[in-house]
Amino acid sequence: MGSLEAERNTVGWAAREPSGILSPYTYTLRNTGPGDVYLKVMCCGICHSDIHQIKNDLGMSNYPMVPGCKVVTKFNKTNSPLLLHSHEVVGEVVEVGSDVTKFRAGDVVGVGCIVGCCGSCRPCKADIEQYCNKKIWSYNDVYTDGKPTQGGFANAMVVDQKFVVKIPDGMAPEQAAPLLCAGVTVYSPLNHFGLKQSGLRGGILGLGGVGHMGVKIAKAMGHHVTVISSSDKKRAEALDHLGADEYLVSSDAARMQEAADSLDYIIDTIPVNHPLEPYLSVLKIDGKLILMGVINTPLQFISPMVMLGRKSITGSFIGSMNELEEMLEFCKDKDLSSTIEIVKMDYINTAFERLEKNDVRYRFVVDVAGSKLEL
Amino acid sequence: MGSLEAERNTVGWAAREPSGILSPYTYTLRNTGPGDVYLKVMCCGICHSDIHQIKNDLGMSNYPMVPGCKVVTKFNKTNSPLLLHSHEVVGEVVEVGSDVTKFRAGDVVGVGCIVGCCGSCRPCKADIEQYCNKKIWSYNDVYTDGKPTQGGFANAMVVDQKFVVKIPDGMAPEQAAPLLCAGVTVYSPLNHFGLKQSGLRGGILGLGGVGHMGVKIAKAMGHHVTVISSSDKKRAEALDHLGADEYLVSSDAARMQEAADSLDYIIDTIPVNHPLEPYLSVLKIDGKLILMGVINTPLQFISPMVMLGRKSITGSFIGSMNELEEMLEFCKDKDLSSTIEIVKMDYINTAFERLEKNDVRYRFVVDVAGSKLEL
Repeated sequence: MGSLEAERNTVGWAAREPSGILSPYTYTLRNTGPGDVYLKVMCCGICHSDIHQIKNDLGMSNYPMVPGCKVVTKFNKTNSPLLLHSHEVVGEVVEVGSDVTKFRAGDVVGVGCIVGCCGSCRPCKADIEQYCNKKIWSYNDVYTDGKPTQGGFANAMVVDQKFVVKIPDGMAPEQAAPLLCAGVTVYSPLNHFGLKQSGLRGGILGLGGVGHMGVKIAKAMGHHVTVISSSDKKRAEALDHLGADEYLVSSDAARMQEAADSLDYIIDTIPVNHPLEPYLSVLKIDGKLILMGVINTPLQFISPMVMLGRKSITGSFIGSMNELEEMLEFCKDKDLSSTIEIVKMDYINTAFERLEKNDVRYRFVVDVAGSKLEL
Repeated sequence: MGSLEAERNTVGWAAREPSGILSPYTYTLRNTGPGDVYLKVMCCGICHSDIHQIKNDLGMSNYPMVPGCKVVTKFNKTNSPLLLHSHEVVGEVVEVGSDVTKFRAGDVVGVGCIVGCCGSCRPCKADIEQYCNKKIWSYNDVYTDGKPTQGGFANAMVVDQKFVVKIPDGMAPEQAAPLLCAGVTVYSPLNHFGLKQSGLRGGILGLGGVGHMGVKIAKAMGHHVTVISSSDKKRAEALDHLGADEYLVSSDAARMQEAADSLDYIIDTIPVNHPLEPYLSVLKIDGKLILMGVINTPLQFISPMVMLGRKSITGSFIGSMNELEEMLEFCKDKDLSSTIEIVKMDYINTAFERLEKNDVRYRFVVDVAGSKLEL
């Protein structure tokens, strides 16, 4: 730990302007403070929300921007975000600050979407720091030292130990990466809303990065899982590859009617506007429709649909650090893996193009350590 | 109990056609079966939903119809009702069937919105029979014997003991009446959603029959209660008469902003379409917006408003018989009374007119026993 005083340069791949094309960029990491962990990035997942950030879709991107681990955004006055979502960095600890006892050099660790919070608000005190209004995003945000935060498409990161999680022994880093966002995003609401016990009947709406983890995690919990989709296209994928129990096409009125009052919950990962009533109707009494997709045009429902079955329309946002740890252990115990396509850094611009067309099954993970970052 | 075999006539006030004008009507009650309670009606509350029923607003009214204790409706194929709501009959037991041990002649009892259920579905088995798909409404429905059910604006009723509740000793019948619908409608969600402990901060949206009971019950639970209204008109009423702690005008953006993230729940009794976002924003993390108003035009919200605070939009429908009993005991213990205007039966058509204009503070109760039902 001899370098605690020295600032270090690192190389990441950054977007420079709203074309969103990433290219090498050298920047300075802060010193490893007493509570910090300095890590060498091994791999990092790619999330759909990166696209919005690198292309300045929200009008709040700051360049140069190294994405790869969370995104977002500001809150408007009513605390609604314009976009949220996240990523997943796995790295090896190189150095730790003097107050860090939980990690040591050589540990394989993960970093999620958040690298800071206020520590004193109600959510922080309740260990649900993901709901802190002063949380600091892993990139495209400003750290407490005034410097921009930069993500995981880079050689190295310095992160407060509170926001670092140990990857369980024996779990492959590239497998762990998608769990740090997609995995915990699904695990957290099932945990929070009391939906972990086996025997429940769950629905997964949408089969993207989060949806596919939803099927795997729900199956691993012992749930009977129905994938609900707008077309028949993903039937074989859902049933044969992911192991779902049933497949429902939402436009098939007869089958939807048969399925009325049958599900304890639905994890709704659809990222565009869609009617809620067909899905509310397949929930049991007290069932929960859990929204995961950030949709800024209004969703609609009629009140009797919730009242007459005491159903809830709710949502959830990533997960806490405690849940992240718990979820990783759960996935290790259940031998649960994510379905990924591993790419090198020089493929990243192509990967973003393909991701925009949903042409990935299901998550790109960049092998950062195995890539040459300087061109 | 000598008359178990004999059918008896009774006189009620019935609507004959969609003008909704009530007038005396003689009809036959079924025999007091082994599980039935035969009761003489003492008083009965008037609920807004009666108006829709007597005027055939839903196109499903059957005449002659004696209202006064529940209303509704059929379910459409997705189980959404076209209208729901309810009433409140208090009566004195005259005779009980041979299997009835819980009640005896002379007891003062109440009847709520429902007089039958299937007994074998999941909600019935969980003692939340109000969510049974085969429940039988207290009026404008068909009983198991094929006869129409008729409500509490009548001399007498015969009701299955399961749907009869004892009015606690010392509680005035006319005070008890509004609790059987408005009271339990508010009590049930607070009970079910774990919102009974003191110290919570609650919001009540709308100050009608249900809303005013909401303020009183929430205050009796030891909550800090904010009444939220579209205008300043009811400020003195809310604060001085009902004992609310705060009054918020929803169009006052500055005050609404100050109130952001402050409430554990909101009971939303507004019966017409309204935006949900201003109210979602004043909820804390994990806060619940509990809808009580049946609104058949779509309500709207954007998904980040629920996701980023793990908030829920939910609703609830009257309450179970168990909750009815519990709520009556609670109200008696807390010496909680409802604010009512007592009228005679010959005033009922005027009362309906005034109720349509919200000209009542807060609930009409018909003194049935003290009225001459035959003209």
